[in-house]
Amino acid sequence: MSHEPLLVGIDAGGTSTRAVLTNLGGECLGYGVGGRGNPISAGPDRAADGVLDAIDNALRASGRAISDLSTVVAAMAGSRAAGGDWLRERLVDRGFRGDLKFESDLLAAYFSAAASPFGYALVSGTGACVIRVQDGCIAKAGDGLGWLLGDRGSGFSIGQAIARAAVQDLDGTGPATALTDKVLEHCGVERSREIHQGRTEDLEELITALYARPPIELAALAPFAFEMSDAVATDILAAAGEHLADTLASVLEGPGPLAIGGGVLARTGPVRDAFLARLGGAVEGLEIRVVRDGAVGAAMLAVRAAGGVIDDQLLGRLTTTVARF
Amino acid sequence: MSHEPLLVGIDAGGTSTRAVLTNLGGECLGYGVGGRGNPISAGPDRAADGVLDAIDNALRASGRAISDLSTVVAAMAGSRAAGGDWLRERLVDRGFRGDLKFESDLLAAYFSAAASPFGYALVSGTGACVIRVQDGCIAKAGDGLGWLLGDRGSGFSIGQAIARAAVQDLDGTGPATALTDKVLEHCGVERSREIHQGRTEDLEELITALYARPPIELAALAPFAFEMSDAVATDILAAAGEHLADTLASVLEGPGPLAIGGGVLARTGPVRDAFLARLGGAVEGLEIRVVRDGAVGAAMLAVRAAGGVIDDQLLGRLTTTVARF
Repeated sequence: MSHEPLLVGIDAGGTSTRAVLTNLGGECLGYGVGGRGNPISAGPDRAADGVLDAIDNALRASGRAISDLSTVVAAMAGSRAAGGDWLRERLVDRGFRGDLKFESDLLAAYFSAAASPFGYALVSGTGACVIRVQDGCIAKAGDGLGWLLGDRGSGFSIGQAIARAAVQDLDGTGPATALTDKVLEHCGVERSREIHQGRTEDLEELITALYARPPIELAALAPFAFEMSDAVATDILAAAGEHLADTLASVLEGPGPLAIGGGVLARTGPVRDAFLARLGGAVEGLEIRVVRDGAVGAAMLAVRAAGGVIDDQLLGRLTTTVARF
Repeated sequence: MSHEPLLVGIDAGGTSTRAVLTNLGGECLGYGVGGRGNPISAGPDRAADGVLDAIDNALRASGRAISDLSTVVAAMAGSRAAGGDWLRERLVDRGFRGDLKFESDLLAAYFSAAASPFGYALVSGTGACVIRVQDGCIAKAGDGLGWLLGDRGSGFSIGQAIARAAVQDLDGTGPATALTDKVLEHCGVERSREIHQGRTEDLEELITALYARPPIELAALAPFAFEMSDAVATDILAAAGEHLADTLASVLEGPGPLAIGGGVLARTGPVRDAFLARLGGAVEGLEIRVVRDGAVGAAMLAVRAAGGVIDDQLLGRLTTTVARF
């Protein structure tokens, strides 16, 4: 028993990292959480800290060490661009002698909810991307083009639409919306109808406040659209759902499971309704499954990397045993 | 004659600065060009250099000096946010003892094409903004909210739409367009259909190239839409024209002159066609006039600041006499 291969699957994200310790049979032996794990957004040193913390926390309950691991699979966005030395060197320093492999976080999201070698994953969090999986690999990606060029239907796109709706409300170029007070409050700006150069003071201050932050932080406004039920908020959410359906449609090639990750499509409501309506008949061939934890899929990919077979049974066992932690 | 008030009107822009030397009667006595003159985008020292160079060049032909000027009006974007000391101190160092006043570049654009105290100006260059002028002052502004939150129908918005169309073409989430080759060439990326993680290599390289620049530089792509005549390019231009019409409609309050500035609406074609079609009947009360040189309007504002009367006669004389330089 102590000589059976010990594997770790890691879902390294922009805000936190999760690690699943498993054997080849898909029995979860430990689960750990660490800090930010993406080397592009967090920097390589901080990202390696996040990943190692998650692994250490996963190993703690098992009484095993990093030197006992035979396979580590780290799933993350942009893994190809970052290379792998930032993590490999830190693991080797800790006695790791096994195989380290990087995988796409989208593929891990897919295998967190499906085991079939053919299917789809659609992840809409801060960004938005869809993949078609064939023979267990990514055959085609759609969108994931980033906040400036794409990510249609993402949390960023919703947040930007909310910010635009608020400034257009104050500007008189758009309709009144309950979102405006939310955005003003979020930015610490008080209502003021005093006018300079044809523009109210509150609008001027709101513009200054919104441009003072990195653009990507507009994603933090996205929850306001889900809290409000006025026409402007509903239109923003419906547009996001339609964009996500169009992105998915661009990679559809027949029936299969559809793994849905990220916060935007996770709940029922205007986004999901518009998404399904826009897909129309195409939805009939899709089994929609919500991704609960991308680290489960990373563990599936670790089993595959170690020579194991990934199927519905393995996914079921991993899902059940991860839930104990 | 040597004791008549000598005035300068300055149009200080993000790329160049123009100065008109005039007397109270609107006779242009000199015209000068300088470098970047906006203290927010160029920094205060460099902006002051640009403005002083323009003034020196305008004075050269007249044999007069900065100490002879009684009024300087500097028109620029964001003049209120920058304060005025960056320019005042440099002028005083050079012997200036007159009045210095800052005005909006939009108001200068208006008075470059119209003398009536009531009317409208619509400027669409890199950004897009509209104003309603009442009693010779800005009564209401619309848009001008910047590239992240507004500027609908601007050169930036057209450039961003072009970049999005190109990456969506390569991505398969959008239609094929002749714009793609233009954007690839602009960014120095060669066509390559080699695929990694479901995405072609040229797309990956184009995304990297586009994100490596400041977002505002997407405006440099805008001319491609005017050069191409495929459906995607035409749709982008038509959408810009409709956005500009909607922005103008938000400030319309009856008939008056409409001064049009910036490159987007200056020429005939899809933007102008869509703009006029969207305005519909509202266009009948508007006398559309294209702004040739914002420095003429700045000179109008300098005459007003010095106690002169601004009317069609003054505008006509300034326009005619500026043309001699």
